[in-house]
Amino acid sequence: MIKRRSEINDLIDEMARLPGLGPRSSRRLVLHLLKRKSKQMEPIAKLMLDVARLIRECNECGNLTEADRCEICAAENRAKGEICVVADVADLWAMERAGSFKGRYHVLGGLLSMLNNMGPDEIRIPKLMERVEADSVSEVILALNLTVEGQTTAHYIAERLQGVGVKVTSLGTGVPIGGELDYLDEGTIAAALDARKDV
Amino acid sequence: MIKRRSEINDLIDEMARLPGLGPRSSRRLVLHLLKRKSKQMEPIAKLMLDVARLIRECNECGNLTEADRCEICAAENRAKGEICVVADVADLWAMERAGSFKGRYHVLGGLLSMLNNMGPDEIRIPKLMERVEADSVSEVILALNLTVEGQTTAHYIAERLQGVGVKVTSLGTGVPIGGELDYLDEGTIAAALDARKDV
Repeated sequence: MIKRRSEINDLIDEMARLPGLGPRSSRRLVLHLLKRKSKQMEPIAKLMLDVARLIRECNECGNLTEADRCEICAAENRAKGEICVVADVADLWAMERAGSFKGRYHVLGGLLSMLNNMGPDEIRIPKLMERVEADSVSEVILALNLTVEGQTTAHYIAERLQGVGVKVTSLGTGVPIGGELDYLDEGTIAAALDARKDV
Repeated sequence: MIKRRSEINDLIDEMARLPGLGPRSSRRLVLHLLKRKSKQMEPIAKLMLDVARLIRECNECGNLTEADRCEICAAENRAKGEICVVADVADLWAMERAGSFKGRYHVLGGLLSMLNNMGPDEIRIPKLMERVEADSVSEVILALNLTVEGQTTAHYIAERLQGVGVKVTSLGTGVPIGGELDYLDEGTIAAALDARKDV
């Protein structure tokens, strides 16, 4: 390291705090980038600033977008009657990679959790209820992790939707118990979607 | 992913090409950053641009610096008579963490390699010869990886320095065979420096 406080040490410290990185991998990344200033370091930094400025949450579903509504909500060819509820954007991307769902999404932005102080209002459940009541939704598919928090959230949403006159389903067999959606292969996700069952 | 070409996909693709990252870890990093735009994403991007603009190579030794000469070359209390030759800046940082070397460095910026077309002129060996002849250098310590390429480079430099009237040493026992400097603990590096031997 350079001894006195300098930008390079600040950068290494900041990057070491990112998930999956530590002090050593952060040092290696920064040295790698310094050898490729104009080819990688500056383009990545500028893309980061662009993304931070341009990308925000879809007013409707919570997906990432550059406009008020995301591409999926704005698409004419996606069924309005089916809403697939996911915990976060990584799960939405995993569903889209599987490619078999043709409806729309609702991104909760988290899961119910006593430990992390996450209640229904923190995870966009009021907005989900609003969408289900306003639009002519016929089915809500709960695509949530098969963990304690995911299933607690699924049960809570299913209960809230009782009596609203909408079919509530969850992903079918194929998802391994304790597994997380973002780590599944496309085939398993597609199979689970085909075999979805009533809650 | 967002389907059409967009900045977020470009950023994920660019970051997936960095060492130690892949498409999945890059997606996770970008989503993590998007949740912390003002606290992490923008500060890191701005630090990257600052570092790319400010940091360059020391004219003397090849270390990273914001000035013409690095802090170590400019320091009055570092012995001018000893030059420690390292392959790159990560190795210089590893030596400095050990804290027992009080001389100056010469950063080659690589190792001799037939495979990668790296000859003596590509790795700042002419500049090393120049420094040894110009300054009153009494000892050159070769702190190079104990790999084939590191030892080839060490032998080449030792041969070039024969007859110049300078003592040439290499790091002593303590460095494991096949090991790489950047991965060693400080104690091993300090022990190896104490036990340095003639080439």
